[in-house]
This record gives sequence, C-alpha cells and structure tokens, in this order.
Amino acid sequence: MPIWQLCPNIHSVPQIVACTRNDKTGSKSVSGRPKVSPQLNRWFRARAVRSGQKLDRSSLRTQPPEPNPPVRPLPLPVDPDGAVNLDGADVMTVKSIYIVSDGTGWTAEHCVNAALGQFDYCLVDRGCPVSTHLFSGIDDAEKLLEITKQAAKEGAFFVYTLADPSLASAAKQACKLWGVPSTDVLGPITEAIASHLGVSPSGLPRGASGLPLSDDYFRRIEAVEFTIKQDDGACPQNLAEADIVLTGVSRTGKTPLSIYLAQKGYKVANVPIVLGVGVPRTLFEVDPKKVFGLTINPLVLQNIRRTRAKTMGLSSDGRSNYSEMNYVREELEFAGRLFAQNPLWPVIDVTGKAIEETAAVVLRLYHDRKHICTMPRISKRY
Amino acid sequence: MPIWQLCPNIHSVPQIVACTRNDKTGSKSVSGRPKVSPQLNRWFRARAVRSGQKLDRSSLRTQPPEPNPPVRPLPLPVDPDGAVNLDGADVMTVKSIYIVSDGTGWTAEHCVNAALGQFDYCLVDRGCPVSTHLFSGIDDAEKLLEITKQAAKEGAFFVYTLADPSLASAAKQACKLWGVPSTDVLGPITEAIASHLGVSPSGLPRGASGLPLSDDYFRRIEAVEFTIKQDDGACPQNLAEADIVLTGVSRTGKTPLSIYLAQKGYKVANVPIVLGVGVPRTLFEVDPKKVFGLTINPLVLQNIRRTRAKTMGLSSDGRSNYSEMNYVREELEFAGRLFAQNPLWPVIDVTGKAIEETAAVVLRLYHDRKHICTMPRISKRY
Repeated sequence: MPIWQLCPNIHSVPQIVACTRNDKTGSKSVSGRPKVSPQLNRWFRARAVRSGQKLDRSSLRTQPPEPNPPVRPLPLPVDPDGAVNLDGADVMTVKSIYIVSDGTGWTAEHCVNAALGQFDYCLVDRGCPVSTHLFSGIDDAEKLLEITKQAAKEGAFFVYTLADPSLASAAKQACKLWGVPSTDVLGPITEAIASHLGVSPSGLPRGASGLPLSDDYFRRIEAVEFTIKQDDGACPQNLAEADIVLTGVSRTGKTPLSIYLAQKGYKVANVPIVLGVGVPRTLFEVDPKKVFGLTINPLVLQNIRRTRAKTMGLSSDGRSNYSEMNYVREELEFAGRLFAQNPLWPVIDVTGKAIEETAAVVLRLYHDRKHICTMPRISKRY
Repeated sequence: MPIWQLCPNIHSVPQIVACTRNDKTGSKSVSGRPKVSPQLNRWFRARAVRSGQKLDRSSLRTQPPEPNPPVRPLPLPVDPDGAVNLDGADVMTVKSIYIVSDGTGWTAEHCVNAALGQFDYCLVDRGCPVSTHLFSGIDDAEKLLEITKQAAKEGAFFVYTLADPSLASAAKQACKLWGVPSTDVLGPITEAIASHLGVSPSGLPRGASGLPLSDDYFRRIEAVEFTIKQDDGACPQNLAEADIVLTGVSRTGKTPLSIYLAQKGYKVANVPIVLGVGVPRTLFEVDPKKVFGLTINPLVLQNIRRTRAKTMGLSSDGRSNYSEMNYVREELEFAGRLFAQNPLWPVIDVTGKAIEETAAVVLRLYHDRKHICTMPRISKRY
C-alpha cells in the first residue's frame, strides 16, 4: 500500500508525506523533492495534486509548524428559518473569512481575493480550505454585532470596509471583545489620503453620498456598450472610434479582455484574424498606436479550441479543422506574418496569463505610447 | 459683484465663502446654509457647483484647518526622452497618489478609488484635485526606488501592493527615508490571513506563481462569453442555462449590469420589455428564483433615453417616441404590470444606483434565495 494511504485525510491536518513522483528528467525520487526553483516546485505540486498524489509540505513552513490550535467543536448552525448549507464533514476544518461592508463589499472582496492569491499553492490542493462570506449593506450596529457574534462562533477572520467611523469603531471593539481576528481594509488608506489632501472623509458608504453619478462612471458605461456592439469585428467602420483595437486569432482572449478594458473606461474593438480570410482593410487605416496583437502558444491554443469545440458540440471527425494542430500552427503563423508587417503593433503573448495581467500590459503600453515618461504609468485625473 | 468673485481660485486654497443659494423651500440664505441633513447638504453642494456657485466649506472640517504645508516649488519634470504631460498651472496644487505594484496593481487601484469615494464631495468641485499614477509590474528594487524618489519630488502619497516581502520592506524604508507618506494595502491583510490559515504567503505576485489558471477563472471567462452572446434577449431558448435573468425596459442598465455579474462568474441573460411587443414566453418557464426585474424613475429614464437618442443621431421630431414622457411612463407601467403578475421576481429600482450597487443587491438576493441564512450573504468556497 503506498505510504500516503496510511496517513490521515490531508484535509484535516497537514502531514509531511513522502511521495513518489516523476520529475521532468524521468527519474523517480521516493522521498523529498528534486532541487528545483520555488516556482517550479509549486508547479510540480499542482501537477502532482492533479494526478492524485499527496504533497510534501515541509518547504512551505518558514518556521516549525505551530501546534494545531484546539479546534472547538462547532455545532452545525441551524436556524429556525432554514438550514445553512455547510458540508458537515468540513465544518471543523474549513477556515472562514467574513467580509463585511456598509457598502457593496466589492473592495474588501477584491482585497481578500488578492491576498488569497498568496496562498494559491495550498488552496489548489485544498490543504488550507477557505470559505468567504460577503455581507454587504451592513449599515447598522445591530446587524454588525450579529455577524461578529457568528464570526466568533465559527472562528472566522473578519475583514471589513465600514465607511461610517462609528460602525468601524464598533466592529473593531466587538472583534476585540470576542477574540475575532480582524482587519480594516479601507480605514488606514482613507485616513492617510485624508491627511494627504487636508480634508475629512465623508464617512458615507458608496451610493449614500447623494451625489449624482460621475461623468467618469457614465463614460465607463458607454465604453462597455460600445465594446459589446463591436465584439468580433462586427462594425469595422467604427474602428476609428475605439480607443484600443485588439487583434488575434480565435481564442486568444479578445472578448473577455475587451470587456475587462471596457469596464475601465476604454472603448475596445476586436478584429479576429482568420486564416484564408484575413482582416478588414480598415485595421490598417487606424492609428497603429492603439492596435495590439495577441498571440499564444500553439499547444495551449489547441487545447483551448478542443475544449471549446466540445462545449459547442462540434464534432472531431475531420469536418472542422479548427482545433487540429496543423491548422492551429498555420493560423498562428499567418497572424505572425501580419504582425511582422505591422511592427508598430505591440504583440502580447497571452499564454498562461490571466485577463487582468494582459490588461495591465496593454494599458501600460497604451499610456506609455500616449505620454512618454521615464517610468511607464497609467495616470488618471480626479 | 457676487462675493465669490472676490475670492482666490478655489483650486488653490479652500476658502470659507459665503454663497447665495436657493434651497428646496425656495427661500434664500445669504450666508451659511440651511439646517439640513449631511446627505442633503452634500447634494446641495454638488448642485450648487454645477450651477456655478462657490461652496461654504466650514462644515467639512472636524477640526480647525491646519496651516497649509509649505508648497515646495516643483520644477516641471522634463525627461531626456520626452516631456511629461502635466498641466503646468496645476503642478503646485494637484495632489498625486502613486500606486505601485509588483503585479497588476488593480487591487491597489480599486482600494484607492474606493477610498477616494470618501472625498467625492470635494473632488466633484475640484476643491481637492487628485491625480493617480499606477505603476504595475515593478518587480525590482531599482525601479521601485526610482519611483519612490519621483514620489518624493512630487510630494505624492505612495500606495503599494508588493507581494515580495523584500520589495515591500524596501518600499517602506525608502518612503520613510525620503518622507513620503505611504500605505501598504495588502501586507496587513495577507499577514492576518497567513496567521488565520497557519501557512506562509508565497511572496509571489499574481501570475508569477507558475500555477495554472484556476477552474474558477475559466468559469468566469465562460460566463462572460455566454453573457455577451445572450445580450438583449438574443437567444431566449438559452434562458434555462443562465444563472441570472435580468428583465426591464430599455435603458434600465441590463447590459452593463449583466457584464458586471458575468465577470463575477454568473451566466446572465437579458430580456428586454418592450411596450406592444411583450417578452418571450420562455421567460415565464424559467425558475423564477433567478429572474430579477429592473425599474427606474420615469424622469431619469427619459433623460437617459434623450441622451442616448442624441448619441445615436435619432431625431426628436416625433418619428420616434422612445424618449417621450408619455411613452416612457406607459412602458414602465407595462413592465410594472408584468412584474405584478410575477410576484416571485424581485424588482430593483436602479434610479441613481451605480452598477456595482445594483449588482450587490441582485447577488445578495440571489444567494439568499438559494441558501436561506439568518443574515443574507454571498458565500464562496476556495
């Protein structure tokens, strides 16, 4: 029996487990891990987990593991008006994060997600399972205290964005009183900005100020609507109106990227490159400073297209070569030649990049080309 | 000459200025302000500004105004490789916020925007003009120090998300050394989560972990693509596949709202309600728990439609009654009757709400209907 089957369920208590793993060179190591960079190590872990192996966690602790804190036996929370959907087996081990806001809570959620990105390596194999619970519109002390009490019962971590200073203070005190670890996400930065600007914060959550929605807001709405109408080269004659033009073969992420950029206020047009069809003439007539080419690794593209074809119910009996490797390579080479003929278009390799990352690259280049600075930046005036 | 014309430019130094203002009751007060709630007060300010009046700022200080810090005469930054685009006249007065990240910087930008929401009341009339400058991908100390030096020159406030602990430490020390006020947005929350989970953060920015993109990420991409194809009731037969169905008359914000929700991972279908045309039969066949009605104040809707018609070049000579008040009211009443006949559909009034706020309401209701809890929440498992 492999050694890991003798060990308790990895979900409950992280174990130092020996594993058998094939590394890239084909050699097997029965214990420990090959001497590799931390990044490659993490990649191995993810790959190992996906192939069903257990992990050696010894490298992930910068200090000796602390003794596990005593786990309070938590009763399953059952309310008079219905059951809470919790997996009973995991109640003792899933760590909860309560995200509380007197506004929408999206800022706090964004911060929590970003911070959790630092723990991807153990989230990916459920070594440190986490549940987040977002409570928005919590604008009175009674609701706030009820949530804090629940957080205390569940042993949750409490993250909050409470614009109202009295609510923020109440949250801080209640958490301290009931031993709930907490972080105020916006308080410190708001106070610092107040000091920098020399004015006081309003103390009102988003939407409660009574001020009309800003011009910038309506500009972003307009950009989203423009971009949706433009999607997939629908109106080539409107390329001139776009702020940014994305071009690339199918499944290089043009659509989700264009939407992401649109939500930041940029009108985006997509122009697909199709082998044998080419691109609209108008693409060569727009200001090259706003055109960005997208490319991707052919193996990854083939994989994406196969998945897509399956979802769309397209058969793989040769009637469509959309995801065939030869076709994929040819189409990418065709796009490559087009990009080479238009050297002013930056070409971004989106392989393995999340949309948010590609967007950051596009916008950094976009702004750098508009306003030359020693250090590229995205500037905005309020 | 009105008294405010005797006062210096409001951009440079906030002044206590008497103003003449019509309040809601029609009476005029020559100095000070009517006794109104803080929210209504802020609304008056915004309205006053838009009608060209100066503001009485005395209520916005919780303590006597500090003497203005000495303004260092800043030379216009001119680089060998080009000019920086700064309005010379404003260099002395616009406050800068530098947003620095070794990743994309979107989290820090989101936090800064949220915090600046607390200062809308003085941003809206440029009483405290602010420029933000986002530097993403700053992953080495040299670039970091160069930016910090520039921040010191400009008297900027420095906000950072630096996953690499040595970079974060370098930023903190450099800012302290050069007297640059700074805030670490993610450090505190990351440390707190690390303590809560009992594991160490990876210290790697987004995208550098080498881990493959998560299933949740691909789910969000799929949701965006689904939602774009669905936009404007294009495929009523696919309503069943959607997680959320939005319905309402034209210009109630269905499109931008559906995209916002899609980016959070929800497949959204939009079904427009049109007077005289009705809605597809399939709308009544889907699970009512996922249908949400949108409504809006008729005056506001008329205004939005007029602006839209102008943008689209539609004439206002009677050939289209799209933005005529009678038509607007009739169409809203038609929608209202439809909603009344389907009482299981929650109806959300979007008047004056930003998309993010409406989204928070929709999702709170959506999750509450799926999993009954004492306190409505949006829960997610990692």
